[in-house]
Amino acid sequence: GNALFSGLGTTVFEVMSRLARQHGAVNLGQGFPDGRGPEDVLRVAATAVTDGWNQYPPMLGLPELRKAVADHDKRFYGLEVDPEAEVVVTSGATEALAAALFALIEPGDEVVLFEPLYDAYLPLVRRAGGVPKFVHLTPPDWSFDRAALARAFSPRTKAVLFNNPLNPAAKVFGAAELDLLAEFITGSNAYAICDEVYEHLVFDGRRHQPLIARPGMRDRCLKIGSAGKTFSLTGWKVGYVTAAPPLATLLGKAHQFLTFTTPPNLQAAVAYGLAKGDDYYDGVIAELQGKRDRFAAGLRRLGLGVLPCDGTYFVNLDIGSTGFNGDDQAFCRHLIEDVGVAAIPVSAFYAEDPLATVARFCFAKQDAVLDDALGRLAKRF
Amino acid sequence: GNALFSGLGTTVFEVMSRLARQHGAVNLGQGFPDGRGPEDVLRVAATAVTDGWNQYPPMLGLPELRKAVADHDKRFYGLEVDPEAEVVVTSGATEALAAALFALIEPGDEVVLFEPLYDAYLPLVRRAGGVPKFVHLTPPDWSFDRAALARAFSPRTKAVLFNNPLNPAAKVFGAAELDLLAEFITGSNAYAICDEVYEHLVFDGRRHQPLIARPGMRDRCLKIGSAGKTFSLTGWKVGYVTAAPPLATLLGKAHQFLTFTTPPNLQAAVAYGLAKGDDYYDGVIAELQGKRDRFAAGLRRLGLGVLPCDGTYFVNLDIGSTGFNGDDQAFCRHLIEDVGVAAIPVSAFYAEDPLATVARFCFAKQDAVLDDALGRLAKRF
Ligand SMILES: CSCCC(=O)C(=O)O
Ligand SMILES: CSCCC(=O)C(=O)O
Repeated sequence: GNALFSGLGTTVFEVMSRLARQHGAVNLGQGFPDGRGPEDVLRVAATAVTDGWNQYPPMLGLPELRKAVADHDKRFYGLEVDPEAEVVVTSGATEALAAALFALIEPGDEVVLFEPLYDAYLPLVRRAGGVPKFVHLTPPDWSFDRAALARAFSPRTKAVLFNNPLNPAAKVFGAAELDLLAEFITGSNAYAICDEVYEHLVFDGRRHQPLIARPGMRDRCLKIGSAGKTFSLTGWKVGYVTAAPPLATLLGKAHQFLTFTTPPNLQAAVAYGLAKGDDYYDGVIAELQGKRDRFAAGLRRLGLGVLPCDGTYFVNLDIGSTGFNGDDQAFCRHLIEDVGVAAIPVSAFYAEDPLATVARFCFAKQDAVLDDALGRLAKRF
Repeated sequence: GNALFSGLGTTVFEVMSRLARQHGAVNLGQGFPDGRGPEDVLRVAATAVTDGWNQYPPMLGLPELRKAVADHDKRFYGLEVDPEAEVVVTSGATEALAAALFALIEPGDEVVLFEPLYDAYLPLVRRAGGVPKFVHLTPPDWSFDRAALARAFSPRTKAVLFNNPLNPAAKVFGAAELDLLAEFITGSNAYAICDEVYEHLVFDGRRHQPLIARPGMRDRCLKIGSAGKTFSLTGWKVGYVTAAPPLATLLGKAHQFLTFTTPPNLQAAVAYGLAKGDDYYDGVIAELQGKRDRFAAGLRRLGLGVLPCDGTYFVNLDIGSTGFNGDDQAFCRHLIEDVGVAAIPVSAFYAEDPLATVARFCFAKQDAVLDDALGRLAKRF
C-alpha cells in the first residue's frame, strides 16, 4: 500500500451522498445544485456534441473559452488578461488544484493552508511532497490576523492555498484580510493558489475580490474558477485558471500529464455561458440568496442557531443550539439515520484541532426540497 | 521552478499540431481520427446533456458505464468483472495513468517502463517519486526477452507500465511475451498498469489479449481503456479502469483528488457505445485497416520503407529509405516545413538511447487527407 493515498478514506462528500441514498435522506450534504442549469448553455453543449469538434482541443483549452475567461476577468475584476498566455482550461477546479500543486511543489516545500479546508487539499499537498502549515480559522468570524500568518509563513513557504469565498465557512474575505495575506506572500516569495470557485455566489450586494487583483499579487497568483459552480453544472468538470505567463506555462506542464485536455463541446458551452449578461449572474445570486434566507429562516424558526453566510451555497448550524449531546460526526449520523437529512460535519474540514460543533447544509436546492428538510428537522427539534 | 515539471517541454503531440497549423501541413502527427465518431453515440450524449443529469455523478463513475465496462470485458476477454468493486471511470486514460501511478508509487519505488514510451509516462513516474527502469525495444520486432526483463526488474519493482498495443511501434504483444512479463511481475510482487487504449485497433484478424487475462495476473493488473480511442472521440476524455477490488479502491483514492469525476452525459453515451454490436467493432477495424493499407501502399509506391503495423492507428517510416541525411527530428522538421506533412519523430518516445531513424504517421484520417499527404510526399521523394 501507499502511505500517501491508501490510508485515506473516501471523500466525505461521496460518503454522505451514498449514505443519503441508502437512508432516503434529503441530501443537503455534498455541495451541488439540484436544478437543470441554464437551458441555453445546455443547448449550446448539445449542439457542440452533434455538430462540433469531438477530437482533442488545444491542450491549454479552446481559444474561445480562454478568451471568454479573459473577458470575464476584465468585466468583473478589471484585470487585463492575455487569453493566449495567461489562461489554462482544466478538467474541473480539482484538476486545476492538483496541477497547480504538482507544478509548484517539490518535496520539502512548505504550503500554507487555511482550516477549515476542502478535503482534497491536504492529500494533494502531501502527495506533491509539500509540508503543510496551518492557519486555524473559527466561527463566527473565520478571520486571521498578522500573528496567525507569522506562525504559518517561513522562508520555505512555496505556496499558499487560499479558498475565497470559503467553503464550508460561507465567509467572503475582504480587502483588509487579502492585503494582509498579500504582504506575507510577497515577503516569503511564495505563490498563491486561489480557489475562487464560489466567486459568483456572494450575497447581500457584496462583490468577490480576487486575490490576484490586489496590489503586488498579479504575478504571484493562480486564480481558479469553475463552470460547475458558476453555471450550476457540477458534473461538467470544466475549470479555468488565470495566471501570469510563467505560472500559466508551468501549470500547463502539469495539466498535460494529468488529463491533457477537457471535452471541447462542454468548453464551447462554457465559453458561451461566461459571456452571458449581468441578468444571468445577478439572477443566480438573487435565487440563491432567496434559498439561503428561506432555509436559514426555517432553521431559526425551530430555535436553531445559524452562522452568518456571506457567500457559497452553504449555511452552517451551531449544533450546540439543538440540544444534541455529541460531536458533529455523531450529530450528522443522527441526522441522516433518524431525521432523514444529510449534512456535512465541519470537522471533516480540519486536519488539526477540529471544530466539532458545526454542521454544513447546502441550500442550492429546489424550495420543496429545502422545505422537506425543514419539515423533517421540525419533527426532531 | 520545479525541477520535476518545469524543466519539461510541452508534449510533442501538441507541439507538432501547433506547427502543423502554422505551416498549413497535413497533420498526421498527433494521434486522433478526423471523423465525426459514431452518430448514435453523439446523439445519446446530446440527449443526456439536454435531458439528463448534469451534476456530479458517483465518484467512481455512472453505474451504467461501470456495468458496460464489466460487460465489455466479459464479452471480449471472458473476464468476470464486478462493476461495483472493480471498475473506475476516469477523465481519460491519461488521468487513469496519473491516478494509478500516484496511487501505487511512493518515493524510491522502481517502475519498469518499455521504450518507446508514451511521453506522459516518465514525467508522471518521476513526479510520483518513482525510479524508472527501462526495457529497450527496437524495430522491426519491438520484442523483449528474459534477459532484458531480468535487467529491469528487481525486488524494489513496485509497478510495470505496459502499453499494448504499443504506440508508436504499432506492435501487438502476444501470449508468449505476455506470459514472460507475467512471470517477472509475479516474481517481483509488482503491479502492472496496462495502457490498452488501442485494444480495439488490432488488424489482420488478430485479437488483443489483455495482460489481466493471463494466468496469475487477475489481481495484479490495472487495465486501462479509452472511449476516445474505441469510439474515435479523443476529445471526450472518458477512460475506464478494470482492476481487482483492492487496486480499484486504491485507484479511486487518487482519482477523487485528481478530477473527482467525469461528465455524466459523456459517460452515459460511452455506456451506450460499449454495448454496440460486433458490427461496430468490426467496422472500425475494417475501416482503419483499409486506411493503413492505403497509406502504407502509398509510401511503398514512393519506394519508402514501412515498418510492420499490427495495431494502433500509426504507421512507421524507415527514414533511411528516404535518402534524407539527418536524424528523425530533422526529418520531421523538414517534412512539416518543406513538404507540408506533420509526423512524430520516434526519438521523442525514448528516454535513453533514442531510436532516431523512424517517423510515425497517424493514418486515422479521411482518405482524401491521406492522399493529400501522399501527394505532398511524392513531390519530395
Ligand atoms: C467533489 S464533491 C464536493 C462538492 C463540494 O465542493 C462540497 O460539498 O464542498
Ligand atoms: C494526448 S495527444 C497524443 C495523442 C496520442 O496518443 C499520440 O499521438 O500518440
